[in-house]
Formats: sequence, C-alpha cells, structure tokens
Amino acid sequence: MSSQNDESATQALPDRTQQNPAEDKGEEVSKNAAKKAAKAAKLAEQKADKAKNKGIGKSEAKMPTSKTPKKKIDGAALIGIDVSKEEDFPHWYQQVLTKGDMLDYYDVSGCFILKPASYFVWETIQNWFNDKIKKMGVRNCSFPLFVSEDVLQREKDHIEGFAAEVAWVTHAGSTPLERKIAIRPTSETVMYPYYAKWIRSHRDLPLKLNQWNSVVRWEFKHPQPFLRTREFLWQEGHTAHLTEESAAEEVLQILDHYAHVYEDLLAVPVVRGKKTEKEKFAGGYYTTTVEGYIPATGRGIQGGTSHCLGQNFSKMFGITVEDPNAKGEDKGASLYVWQNSWGLSTRTIGVMVMIHSDNRGLVLPPRVAEIQTIIVPVGITKNTTDEERAQIYKDCSELASKLAAVGVRTETDLRDGYSPGYKFNDWELRGVPLRLEFGPGEAKGGFITASRRDIPGKDGKTTIPLNSLTTAVPELLDTIHNDLYKRADDQFREHRKQITKWDDFTPLLNQKNVLLIPHCLTEECEDQIKELSARKAEEDSGVAQDARAPSMGAKSLCIPFEQPEGIEHGVTKCLNPQCTRLAEKWCMFGRSY
Amino acid sequence: MSSQNDESATQALPDRTQQNPAEDKGEEVSKNAAKKAAKAAKLAEQKADKAKNKGIGKSEAKMPTSKTPKKKIDGAALIGIDVSKEEDFPHWYQQVLTKGDMLDYYDVSGCFILKPASYFVWETIQNWFNDKIKKMGVRNCSFPLFVSEDVLQREKDHIEGFAAEVAWVTHAGSTPLERKIAIRPTSETVMYPYYAKWIRSHRDLPLKLNQWNSVVRWEFKHPQPFLRTREFLWQEGHTAHLTEESAAEEVLQILDHYAHVYEDLLAVPVVRGKKTEKEKFAGGYYTTTVEGYIPATGRGIQGGTSHCLGQNFSKMFGITVEDPNAKGEDKGASLYVWQNSWGLSTRTIGVMVMIHSDNRGLVLPPRVAEIQTIIVPVGITKNTTDEERAQIYKDCSELASKLAAVGVRTETDLRDGYSPGYKFNDWELRGVPLRLEFGPGEAKGGFITASRRDIPGKDGKTTIPLNSLTTAVPELLDTIHNDLYKRADDQFREHRKQITKWDDFTPLLNQKNVLLIPHCLTEECEDQIKELSARKAEEDSGVAQDARAPSMGAKSLCIPFEQPEGIEHGVTKCLNPQCTRLAEKWCMFGRSY
Repeated sequence: MSSQNDESATQALPDRTQQNPAEDKGEEVSKNAAKKAAKAAKLAEQKADKAKNKGIGKSEAKMPTSKTPKKKIDGAALIGIDVSKEEDFPHWYQQVLTKGDMLDYYDVSGCFILKPASYFVWETIQNWFNDKIKKMGVRNCSFPLFVSEDVLQREKDHIEGFAAEVAWVTHAGSTPLERKIAIRPTSETVMYPYYAKWIRSHRDLPLKLNQWNSVVRWEFKHPQPFLRTREFLWQEGHTAHLTEESAAEEVLQILDHYAHVYEDLLAVPVVRGKKTEKEKFAGGYYTTTVEGYIPATGRGIQGGTSHCLGQNFSKMFGITVEDPNAKGEDKGASLYVWQNSWGLSTRTIGVMVMIHSDNRGLVLPPRVAEIQTIIVPVGITKNTTDEERAQIYKDCSELASKLAAVGVRTETDLRDGYSPGYKFNDWELRGVPLRLEFGPGEAKGGFITASRRDIPGKDGKTTIPLNSLTTAVPELLDTIHNDLYKRADDQFREHRKQITKWDDFTPLLNQKNVLLIPHCLTEECEDQIKELSARKAEEDSGVAQDARAPSMGAKSLCIPFEQPEGIEHGVTKCLNPQCTRLAEKWCMFGRSY
Repeated sequence: MSSQNDESATQALPDRTQQNPAEDKGEEVSKNAAKKAAKAAKLAEQKADKAKNKGIGKSEAKMPTSKTPKKKIDGAALIGIDVSKEEDFPHWYQQVLTKGDMLDYYDVSGCFILKPASYFVWETIQNWFNDKIKKMGVRNCSFPLFVSEDVLQREKDHIEGFAAEVAWVTHAGSTPLERKIAIRPTSETVMYPYYAKWIRSHRDLPLKLNQWNSVVRWEFKHPQPFLRTREFLWQEGHTAHLTEESAAEEVLQILDHYAHVYEDLLAVPVVRGKKTEKEKFAGGYYTTTVEGYIPATGRGIQGGTSHCLGQNFSKMFGITVEDPNAKGEDKGASLYVWQNSWGLSTRTIGVMVMIHSDNRGLVLPPRVAEIQTIIVPVGITKNTTDEERAQIYKDCSELASKLAAVGVRTETDLRDGYSPGYKFNDWELRGVPLRLEFGPGEAKGGFITASRRDIPGKDGKTTIPLNSLTTAVPELLDTIHNDLYKRADDQFREHRKQITKWDDFTPLLNQKNVLLIPHCLTEECEDQIKELSARKAEEDSGVAQDARAPSMGAKSLCIPFEQPEGIEHGVTKCLNPQCTRLAEKWCMFGRSY
C-alpha cells in the first residue's frame, strides 16, 4: 500500500475539490452548474417548507436540544453542513443524518424514517450477524407485536423497568377492545409462556431463537435519531439451556459477535465488560455489554447487551425439564432452565455516525457503505469534443464494471450540468468512502485519481495505475476501514483514564473522559457518585450546562473484562470518598447516552 | 433420473415406515421406543394443558370454524394428524401447522407465532425477492409503525377501505396521548408525504423504495393462520415514476416476480391477471394480481397484488416535478408523478401448506424447506455391536457432510431410544422433502435408500448409489419440486372451467371449481352474481353450509391476462342472466379466501 501514499505522487495532483459550487471556475464545461445547483437547493428548500406547512417535518423543527443559536461554519457549501461538530454537536448530528440522506424526521415525535443508506448498514449487520448465529444453531422466527396485559405483567421486576413506556392499543376502528393490548417493549414475556409449552424434555435444549423486529418504548425524554427513539429496529435473541455453563458460554459468544459488529463492520472500538447490579437488565441475573465512546461529547454509550437471565424467568413462567443427571432419590426431579436474552439495535448506526463523520458530512466505513466507490469524470472543458466526453464517460462506466466484478459497490456520477466540485461535495456529504476521478489526464497517464473520504484534501489523494485497480481499490477500502478504527480507538484510549484519586474524577469527566476507578460495585455508592459528579460539574463551570456538556452525573458503564492491575483485595478502598467499602473491581464510569 | 424410478429396485426395498410407533416390532434395538414416545406425547399434552390453564393457547381452543366434531383418522399415529384433509379441512390445517412445527397459536386473538420452519420459508422468499428487486434499482428502507390520524385520513377512498380495521394507540404507560396514533394498515399515507418532500425534480425519478415489515388490520372475521391474521409480515414496495409507461412496466415486472415466488419457490401455480374495478385496491388506478387455488375447498385465493396507483395519491399528497418534456408555453409546468405499490405477505406460506400437505402432515417444497434431506440410520438390531452402530452413525454424518458441501440442507437423526418408524413419522409430519435411510444393508450394497415425502409408500422409494449421491440428491429435490408443481397445476387446470351457460355456474361452483365467464366487468353485475350464486348454493344443498363448503357467493378473482377466444365484441352477452350488458372479457369468478 505504500506506493499509494507516495507523497511525490499526491503532491502533483490537481485539487479539483471545490467547497462551494458557486465558486466554480472556468475549467469545467457547465457554466451554469452553480446557478443550477443554487436553484435546485432553493427549490428543495421551498419544497421542504411546503412540506412543513403540511405538518411534515414538524418534529425536525422542534429538534434542537440546545437553546443557543446554530453556529454556522463560515463559507459552508450551500448544500453542505452549516454547523460544526465541535461547536454545535446536536445540530451537526441532525444535519449529517438528513443531508447525508440517512434519515428523515417524521411527524410522529420520536419516530424516524430510515432511508436506504442507513437501512443498508442495518442489512449488512443483519447478514453478518445471521451468518454467525446460524452457525451457533440459532434459528430466526417471528413473535407477535402485541402482548396481553396479563402476560406482560407476570414478571414484576422486569415490567417495572418498562411499564411507564408501554404503548397501549385500546381501539380497533371505532370499536373499543375488550381488554387493552400492549405493543411489545421487548419480548421476554411475549415468548416465554411458549417456551414453557415447547420445552418438554432436556432433549429440546438448548432452544435458541432470534427475531429481527421493531419494539416500542414510549420514552418521554428528548428523542434522538438512532439513539433514543420510540420505535426502533433490533434483533432479540432468546435462548434456554440445561445448565448455567451452557448459558454463560453463549452470553460471551454473542457479546463477542456484538463487539465484532462494531469493530469489523462499523470501525468502532468498544470495551467489553459486565454491567453492575444497578445497571443490569431488569429481572435478569447478569448483563454483559460492549461500551462505546463518543469523542465529541465525551460520553460513553451502551452498544449492545447480552444477558444471562438465570432461572428467574423460567421460574415465573414454569419452564422446566426433568433433570437428566438426577440419580437415585432425585430421579424425575425437575429443573428450571437457564435463559439468556441479547439484543443489538439500530443504535449501532448512530454511534458509527457520531464517531466518524465530520464537518463535510457523513463518513461511512467502507464495509457498510451502500456505495463504496463513486467514479466522477473530470477535466471536461469547453474545448472537449462530444466524442472525447463520450469516451471518458464510457471509460468511467467500464472501470465501474471492473470494480463491481470484484465485489466493490461502485457507482458513476455522469450527471450533466453539475461540475465535479458540486459532485465531490455531494458524495462527501453522503459519506462515500472513496472517490475515483477519471479524465483526459488520467486516461493519458493510465491511472485513476483516488480521494479518501476519511482524509480531507491532498493528504487523502493518491493515484492508482489502471492495471492494478481491481486489487488496489479493495485494499485501499480495507486501509480506510483500519485507519477509521485506529483513529477512533486512539481517541477512546486517550480518554479512558485510570484514576486513583477522587479529586481527579469530576475535572477529568468534564474534560470528556470516561474513568476507570476502583469501585465497591454497590448501588448505593453508584448513586452517590452520580450525585457528586453532577453537582460538581455545575459548580466548576459556574453556569448551567446545556446538552452539549451535560451536567448529568457519571454512571457506571461497565466492569471491563480486561482489568488493570492495582486493586489489592481487602486493602484497596472504593474511590468514592463517601463510601467506606473496599474496592471489588476497576469499574468504568462516565456520562452516558 | 430414470434409474431412480426403477421399479425392480424399489420393490425390493424394505418398508421400514411404521405408522404407529406403538406397533413397532422386534427388529429395532429400542424396545422402549414406543413407551417413550407415548410418554413424551403424554407429557407434551399435559404441558399444553398446563399452558392452556395459564391462558396460553386459548385461541387455539377457540379455533375450530366448523361446528361438526373432529373426524378422526382411524389408526392415526399418536403424534400425527388425526383428522383428514378431505373431511375436516379447518382442523386438518390447524394440526398440520402446529404439529408440523410451523406455527403456534397466541393468546392475543388473530396473532400467531411463526416458528423457525415457517420463518425460514419467509427468509427464503425475502432473499430471492430482494435479489430481484435490487436488480431493478429498488432500495430497502424502514418507515415507522405509527401514523398520525391527520395523515392517515388524507386520501378518502383509500382510508375507507381500512378505517374499520385500524388499531389505535391511545396511551403510553398510564399517560393518555395528546392525539391517538394509528398502527399502519399499509404505508401509502405513511410514506407519500415524504415522497412529496424528497422528489424535487424529474432527476429524482424513478424513486423505488421497499420495506419488509408487519402491518396490522384488526379484522373481526374469523382469523386463520397466514391467511387472515391481525398482524402479518409482508413487503411493501412504493415507487414513483415520471410516466405512466414506466409505472406500468414495473407493475408487470413485479407481478412476474410474485408469480415466480409461487411457481419456482413454493411449487404453487397461479393465474396472472387484473382485478375488476370492484376488487381493485382502494384509491388506486388498477390492480394486477396472481390468483391461486385451494383444491381441498375449491376456493380461489389472492396471492399477491401489484398496483398502479396512477396520479391519485400524488395529487392528494402534492408529489410533483417540473415536466422535463414541456416546451414553449408549457415550460415550467408541473407534473404529478405516477405511482405504484405492491405487496406480498406471509399468506404465501398458508397457500403452500394448504395445497401440498396431506394426511401425514406437512409437505414442504424443497427450495423453501429448512431441512431438505434427513438422514436416518436403520437396520440396527439387538445383535448390532456398539462398533457397528458407531460406524453407521459415522457414515450417516459423513454422508450429511457431503450433501451439505454441495448445498443440500441436510440433518441426521441419530437420536437413541427412538425407532426408525417413529423418526420417519416425525420427519414426515414436519414435511422434510426427502428422507435418506442408511444401515448395514445399504453400507454393504454401496447405496442409500431414498423416500420422497410427496409420494407415500413404496412408490416414493428408490435407491441411490453412494458414488452419485451428490448429484442425484439435488436432482431428486428438483424432481420433487417439479412434481409438486405439476400435481397442483393439473388440479388447478381441471377446476378452472370455461363456461358459457349461466345454468352451469352454481353447480360447477359447488363442485369446487373456479369459473371463467364472459363478463361485462361492472360492479353492479358482480354484486348480482355474488347474490345469485350464494342463494343458489343453499337451495341446492338444502342445508346450511359450514365453513368447508361455504354458502358465500362467487366474486371476481381476476381478468386473466391469458384470454381464451370466444368473446365477440359487441355481440357476446355478459353471462349473468340479470345483466343486459355486453361481455368485455373472460373473467375468473370463484368462492375465495
């Protein structure tokens, strides 16, 4: 790959990138490109306004979480992002998603439209994960959207965690239903009565089912696309095992798959660990988790959870088998099965966007990008003949076919009337990982000019000889993936501070870090830390914090599996100054989504 | 393939099939198999009873549509189907689905659980169809489950078709919502406000989106698994085009894909055609359809519909572009886009089951069977040594690996303590298309014994030399598919009667036929035919009809694209004796689901 990063080659490259199509200069054929672009953008705005008047996109208008006015980026392109990630993260996130064609706001608050580009990411995750779990013997199925009140409320701790957020159907047409019916917030209570019916003997174990569906949790907190939505897409796996060991093994297998979805598909680093008692799944035995980190806000984010439910639900729902290992007097004794549940949602997409994208728009990791490579014809001027232009277009299409043949998802942008600069902006906004430029110069030299989305300007430019195109492009896409991951991983590591003095806690928290501290793992102590760090944040700054630097306290994110040295059992104290207990583990705390 | 159907070979085969495990004789090692099977069945029954007491499976108890007692099949296996398809179709269908492990009843009426075997069929359809539509430029996406009252009601004709069946959410937790929110019965009104926003110019056309989701139609008629359910899974495609031609072309492409899902995956014949004005999609321009036929009841069934919506919705929702072809004075004139919508649901699975399955249980067409081939070890007796048994098991596993390597979905059934007869019954019940038996005799002879699920007894048996296993089995699976299709197609053709005398209409209808008649295509006339054929049915039989031979009148199923000769325009009369109009087309009428 070193040849592609050859400085001398890249420095000789023309910079055809034009931040603003209105600044487009003479070289290109279409004098009217800027006008057309401006007109198109204006039309779009008018249309959007019209739609808003009809009530569409209303929630978009309401969306801002911060009270401060939008911070505009000076000279930002008309079609591009006009607030910066650093200064107004909530608006930036909104713009990256909507202008990057990933998502649209919807007229039912808290619900969002997943446009094809983001749904493609989800489909890629689905295919990858289906392949892994099917190899584990998991089978997909489909349980109903609805759950009766009786069944929903059978497990008390569990339902307490969801009760306030359950959406209730009370009417069909104008007819009131005899009994109101809930929309599932998750499917434990939907499925487990049937596990009790289906599991007749230890031969039926393990029972491993999964479903891809949507669930509804009618949260009253401020909704945020992908991260906190009232309906969201996910998969939920529900399995039953004869032994705790079998259940425990699977919990970790699944967690590992979740980690790899982040690492290998989304180029997002995560920390694997266990949730504390306070943060575990309501009604479960223990919860394992992969935790991510959003550098722009310094907040942790739960990426996916794999729960061992123990025998709690099997006792509530009467899921038993005859113990095959019971001997003598115990023969015929029944055994409550061990259960797991595990879920990964479209939140994955939000995490990916927040981490990688920049002030030019979306940045998609190559493995989940619907379009991995966009080929743009360049160097067409007023003096170019129709034949020459036709030849360049034809060459572009042929290059696209060659790349498609080796599995690279490639498109060409042969739109007339738009300048290369306009097109460059457009595809950057949509996060296409790699742009290939091809014109008379490239044709003559037998190469193609490549521009990486993840490295702006000349540093991200290189040339690829045409005869190595079909090997070099896939390699370059892999390099982009690895570099995206490394940058995010470096940031996460820099902001994961291991501390042993309480006085460091809140200042470091306020500097966008998550903190590894010796902790007693009790709920009471967690509550204290949350309170202490929340108050301190306000004192420090002297002003009320807005959504960008929340005054919320820190909570425990996870007990990382990878434990540093330094805790001497029976000696090391819990870091919380108000706590008198001994430390059990290094526990990761942080502000969190 | 002819060698496999060699009579002399099949006649020499042992018949190891045992209808009732309790009748299992000495040959097999497990003397206790029958007892165990009986015990397992009893336990299962007790468990089911227990579950019912908890309210689970209640709707199953309520399910029967006919008032007559179940007709038991004499000598039916304990675990098998105990009513016959011919005598008690509704109970038979219920048993085939539940005992075949395809589906379970759910404690919210009208909702059902799709177990892995049926969900696999759906996944296979999804993969196949996704491949086809992606090649057409359709992209998948996800719109919300919820739709506001305002938006839902914007298109009057459309909503009239669904209003009585819309489920309404009115509360979240114990908090009443400000405005009640509907669960989508279909997504036209959910999506089209956004089409108005997104489609800015003719360059954005065609816009082709699809989603895989579930919709809710709270029907008050008697629910039937897969055929009439309050929640069902489907795909819904929604596209926008610049011209009627472009829309019309796509309507037929999609209809063709639907036909091929039935024909090529489910081995189900369908008739392609157009719906009459009376039966078309509410609010649409015209509807095309694939229509199937259920021989056991003689009823037609709508298999999937592809609608051209015309410009009706685009006018309601203001989806316009500037006409790119307008010249002179018309320049700048705006144009309402042409729209299509098309949907295929899990109803497909019900049709497939009703057509192919028999009194031994489910019959799955090979291309959608999760397990295509089950390998069962045979010929193990009291005198078989442990080593010999281990060798046979090992051979079975190796054969399975070989088949898996060529893409045949293969499992082995090496359960101890169950006789081959018991296993045969079990896999037949689950519809596995091909059973392979392997024992000492087969090992010695270098062959494997194959039993087709679709041809019972010795006629379906053949032997396959081990050295041609990996080519012969895929070929045999294709043969099974083709034979299943041909049998169903023959039946459909036999029961599709072209008639020109009204007096033949109701008698032939009562003989489980669908009828091709010269028809005027008016709604008034259809209503008359429905009334005439309903009344006549009761008169003919003298007693009220039950669900198996419904007294419902005939309705128009479709105007087949393939029109027979015989209608002379301006001369041929509509067949309805009360109608004075001229016939326009041959129209297919029938009782229908």
